[in-house]
Amino acid sequence: MAEPPSVQDRYLAEGLCFGCGPANPQGLGLRSFPGAAPGEVVAEWHPQPHHQAGTGVLNGGIIGTLMDCHSGAAVASAVQARTGRWPFAESDPWVTAAYEVRLRRPTPIDAPVRLHARVTEIDDDEAVVEVELASGETVRATATARWRRRRPR
Amino acid sequence: MAEPPSVQDRYLAEGLCFGCGPANPQGLGLRSFPGAAPGEVVAEWHPQPHHQAGTGVLNGGIIGTLMDCHSGAAVASAVQARTGRWPFAESDPWVTAAYEVRLRRPTPIDAPVRLHARVTEIDDDEAVVEVELASGETVRATATARWRRRRPR
Repeated sequence: MAEPPSVQDRYLAEGLCFGCGPANPQGLGLRSFPGAAPGEVVAEWHPQPHHQAGTGVLNGGIIGTLMDCHSGAAVASAVQARTGRWPFAESDPWVTAAYEVRLRRPTPIDAPVRLHARVTEIDDDEAVVEVELASGETVRATATARWRRRRPR
Repeated sequence: MAEPPSVQDRYLAEGLCFGCGPANPQGLGLRSFPGAAPGEVVAEWHPQPHHQAGTGVLNGGIIGTLMDCHSGAAVASAVQARTGRWPFAESDPWVTAAYEVRLRRPTPIDAPVRLHARVTEIDDDEAVVEVELASGETVRATATARWRRRRPR
């Protein structure tokens, strides 16, 4: 059976985003898939050796990049469910306003990571997303991302 | 005249860190230099096209990666000034506990960014670092990074 399209394939097929643009071969290539409910997404991602922090563990900036992009897929899912539109149109795109990453335990470089994100608050202009990153059975990092819709000036 | 060594060249010459390891040719290659006082560092970094968020602006995850690594150079500078040792020894390394990135304005992909970081609090086990990232004359992002010394178990 064919693999289902990722959230990024649906709203961003030509996207060049470093973290999750399907059309950026030098990027991280994160692919997020629908979770249990609208506004919830899951992903699995395989680190490469050059993504390390230097001692066999995944770099914290790469972790933040994955969590930021994955939170964007959650926002996309939630907005699409609310409005019927994908939310990254050029005219009034949703953008990350801020994100906080808490690096709780080292994340091995030589094993896949799993991501889960869930929109916990959303209105017409702002959203809050909680993200977890796990390796093996253990949560290694958590993040809170705040997104906002950028109105044309 | 020869260029002075970066902070990373001094404490991490063989380092493979994705953000700032001098020995990682596929990484971002951030190089931080001493600022006006111990615990203060500055850097200039040139984005490449594949670091974009997808619309001519620098990806927010790359911004966070740069700010996290640059905050590490500030911690290195401060710890070296306090103790005479570089603080990333295998036995009790300093690691990022958490970082928050506030993306205030879009950062162009086609111009260099300048970073400034300053340690604002430090004791034997923890440090707080404030970071700014500017393009042109304008601050585009700010961050707060919290570092801690990981004791052997």
